[in-house]
Amino acid sequence: MLAPYRGFIMDLDGTIYNGKEVIKESADFVHALADRQIPYMFLTNNSSRTPTEIADKLKRMNVPATSEHIYTSSLAMAAYVRAYWHWPLHAYVIGSRGLVSALEEIEVHFTDRNPDVVIVGIDRFFTYEKLATAQAALFNGATLLATNADNAIPTEDGYMPGNGSIVAAIAKASGSPPMFVGKPEQWIVEQSLSILKTAKAETLLIGDNYDTDMLAGIRAGVPTLHVDTGVTRAASLAGKGEQPTFSIAKLDASLLDR
Amino acid sequence: MLAPYRGFIMDLDGTIYNGKEVIKESADFVHALADRQIPYMFLTNNSSRTPTEIADKLKRMNVPATSEHIYTSSLAMAAYVRAYWHWPLHAYVIGSRGLVSALEEIEVHFTDRNPDVVIVGIDRFFTYEKLATAQAALFNGATLLATNADNAIPTEDGYMPGNGSIVAAIAKASGSPPMFVGKPEQWIVEQSLSILKTAKAETLLIGDNYDTDMLAGIRAGVPTLHVDTGVTRAASLAGKGEQPTFSIAKLDASLLDR
Repeated sequence: MLAPYRGFIMDLDGTIYNGKEVIKESADFVHALADRQIPYMFLTNNSSRTPTEIADKLKRMNVPATSEHIYTSSLAMAAYVRAYWHWPLHAYVIGSRGLVSALEEIEVHFTDRNPDVVIVGIDRFFTYEKLATAQAALFNGATLLATNADNAIPTEDGYMPGNGSIVAAIAKASGSPPMFVGKPEQWIVEQSLSILKTAKAETLLIGDNYDTDMLAGIRAGVPTLHVDTGVTRAASLAGKGEQPTFSIAKLDASLLDR
Repeated sequence: MLAPYRGFIMDLDGTIYNGKEVIKESADFVHALADRQIPYMFLTNNSSRTPTEIADKLKRMNVPATSEHIYTSSLAMAAYVRAYWHWPLHAYVIGSRGLVSALEEIEVHFTDRNPDVVIVGIDRFFTYEKLATAQAALFNGATLLATNADNAIPTEDGYMPGNGSIVAAIAKASGSPPMFVGKPEQWIVEQSLSILKTAKAETLLIGDNYDTDMLAGIRAGVPTLHVDTGVTRAASLAGKGEQPTFSIAKLDASLLDR
């Protein structure tokens, strides 16, 4: 069933692991890809960690991965501002190490006074003070950019508020509509394909979450495979709009032979 | 023009004062009401201060007021839960002194574990941790109640994020729709009338903000007077929906004779 595909883009949480627990069949699947030298990458909306940190976590779970296999919404944000904003770019940034590090890499100037943009990623140290600083910047003409719109995120400690909830507060306080780069936006999928160097029709996007993973593939015109190991359960899939190309219970390395 | 009215409900910020500055004509108007012994009260969505603190601020500005003249969205919240919730009520409360004190008064039990309700008012010390605690409580079946939905609020330090932005984050993170008690909800106007003891048709609701003050009066069926001293400028009033009964530049004590 998956034999025709030449490249694989896979979500992480709910697809490869659940919190601290690897999904064994998924690890086997990635090993099969690596053994056959089929190009693959992991595409995550999580903006908090760097590619190196994520690769380390995968290696500890015995999933073959280097930092080059990882593409995050923080990297997509860096690629987006580099492509579309004038330089030097002054940004007020709310976010964690993953986002800060991606933006440092491209030499964004960090400031809380008169920034051109307010860039928002998940931040466990979000406060009313940061909300007020963002509001003032946006009232002053800055543009609101956000890594992703996930309202709640699975973590090793259970569900926690996602970046979508932080962005909602900032958008309400300022009246500024946010612009997102993460899944389900087409931008992050196009970026992944340009790194993977495979054509849309021969690439498969695999994930557990209809509203982020499946919708990202559908919007970008990339075939999709839903796995029933995470957020969107198979039973509720039929109630969604346009359906993924495939839906299976779990990943299975033998599908690569069929 | 205002001679027929037997009771007056007035907004505070933008109507009686702007930040630290009293609006002189408004102070004169309240003095005229007091001199003629016409019942009046101040109705504010600001949940952060107690009636005593607000009355003290008014007195410092030479506006005649005691704590009995003040009705806040915090008092409306206390009245609401006392009227509609079973007792004892366990609440996780995000808010400031004004809200906490109103809920202590009616002996709400404060807890962050398995509350019946999450009650949200403006909180300058709002954090991601409080957002996560609220999310967990709501996932666990609690109901989301909020004093008011103001997105941005005028303060002595300029505009700051309002309670509506905090509630937006909590609603997004949890998927729970919030229930509001403050203006423009009818509930808080009905409560004000029951304290003022005047009939709807003979009471005038005065305010500067169309979306809170004017809409509250319109929804509750109370005549409204818009003043052009605050948020909604007269020029933009025509673009709104149902119009207030009256619109004037500033309050004017002589209107009470006409």
